[in-house]
Amino acid sequence: MTHQIVFILVRPQMGENIGAAARAMMNFGIGNLRLVAPRDGWPSEAAQTMSAGAFERMAVVQVYDTLKAALADCNMAYATTARPRDINKPVLSPRDAVNQTITAPSSGITRTAFVFGPERTGLENDEIACCHAIVTAPVSPDFPSLNLAQCAGLIAYEIASGGAELKTDKETATDPPAPLMDFENLFTRLERMLDEGAFFQSDDLRPVMVRNLRAMLLRGAWSTQEIRTFHGVMTALARLYENKN
Amino acid sequence: MTHQIVFILVRPQMGENIGAAARAMMNFGIGNLRLVAPRDGWPSEAAQTMSAGAFERMAVVQVYDTLKAALADCNMAYATTARPRDINKPVLSPRDAVNQTITAPSSGITRTAFVFGPERTGLENDEIACCHAIVTAPVSPDFPSLNLAQCAGLIAYEIASGGAELKTDKETATDPPAPLMDFENLFTRLERMLDEGAFFQSDDLRPVMVRNLRAMLLRGAWSTQEIRTFHGVMTALARLYENKN
Repeated sequence: MTHQIVFILVRPQMGENIGAAARAMMNFGIGNLRLVAPRDGWPSEAAQTMSAGAFERMAVVQVYDTLKAALADCNMAYATTARPRDINKPVLSPRDAVNQTITAPSSGITRTAFVFGPERTGLENDEIACCHAIVTAPVSPDFPSLNLAQCAGLIAYEIASGGAELKTDKETATDPPAPLMDFENLFTRLERMLDEGAFFQSDDLRPVMVRNLRAMLLRGAWSTQEIRTFHGVMTALARLYENKN
Repeated sequence: MTHQIVFILVRPQMGENIGAAARAMMNFGIGNLRLVAPRDGWPSEAAQTMSAGAFERMAVVQVYDTLKAALADCNMAYATTARPRDINKPVLSPRDAVNQTITAPSSGITRTAFVFGPERTGLENDEIACCHAIVTAPVSPDFPSLNLAQCAGLIAYEIASGGAELKTDKETATDPPAPLMDFENLFTRLERMLDEGAFFQSDDLRPVMVRNLRAMLLRGAWSTQEIRTFHGVMTALARLYENKN
């Protein structure tokens, strides 16, 4: 069974915000946008400009007269609002809503809607009543008014992030750390050079200084290539006075 | 010990984007913004208009000439970029970076920076090299270019979603990483010595070698004491042939 996620902007005022929302949606792979009674009409040049090309990658934007019409073929709907008002509905964080959404197909849900209200006023109570649950971002009580595209973007981001299921692929651009034998050889050479260069202030202090030095150099978990680089650094530094004198 | 999170916008082009970023930051309680060489100057009327009043709730916005100056008093820095390029640094999701950030005070970190590049071009490699790790949002490969304010907003959202308020932990097992200014001074001295010691094989290779070297040395997140130790190592190595000859 396929599961489609659609974003519905209800009575959006500015084309710019529609375009910015579309861009943020496509950044995170959400390609289905529905508009309910956009104030300045549709299509919109301002939306096009702000979208950075998102509409060319999206399914056709569908326009409806009412939220009920836009929700007709959806079997799960979340109302995004910063202010849960006097309405008896579950209130979820974006992450919890997305967790539900991800497991929705196992409940037979085929199309989930996230519903966003107009810029200034937000969703009306009747519109919130059309939805199964309320989604509220963890905004600061002192400054709660999220930009429309920001709100759409963070829901899309949560969907792309897989909700609470932390991605386990700890992908890093770094090479794996070198075998410890390589570190041992590096340390041995460095300590010999430091002995010659009178680095250790006394024989008593030497063991603890060696230990601290090894700890700090090991901490970077250098790769084999990086250890080679550090050998080169040591050689170059040692060459300094040779060149000079 | 208190832990402060700052957002740094590097060479932002449009005041509108600075304002939108500030609004999104304040929505999620992040009140410290630094600007590096904003193209259209500062203060900016366009920023004010787009901020929806965020600046009145923020600490004073600090303006710097260079990223290095803006990072000087930070002891942890994350570079946000969609495209991890040929740079040896850990690449984290926003969530993993924020998880690290939330536990940062237990490592003695007092000021963490999230660094955002200019709208079109993103951060330059030399700027990424100033940071400990890269943060990449899970964007769609087909449409990866996040709006600046969206990017700032989702990091701020993750911080707010991290649940617990920032921990203020007095006990630290290891010394905190040194401020980046100390690393900068170390790198500058080391590179001057390596130039004298004919370490760099050619002028063409020098920039990438410098970058890789900085990345591997920064990775250990050395303390102020450890940086002092490494200065001593450099001095001792450079003394080697002086003693011999």
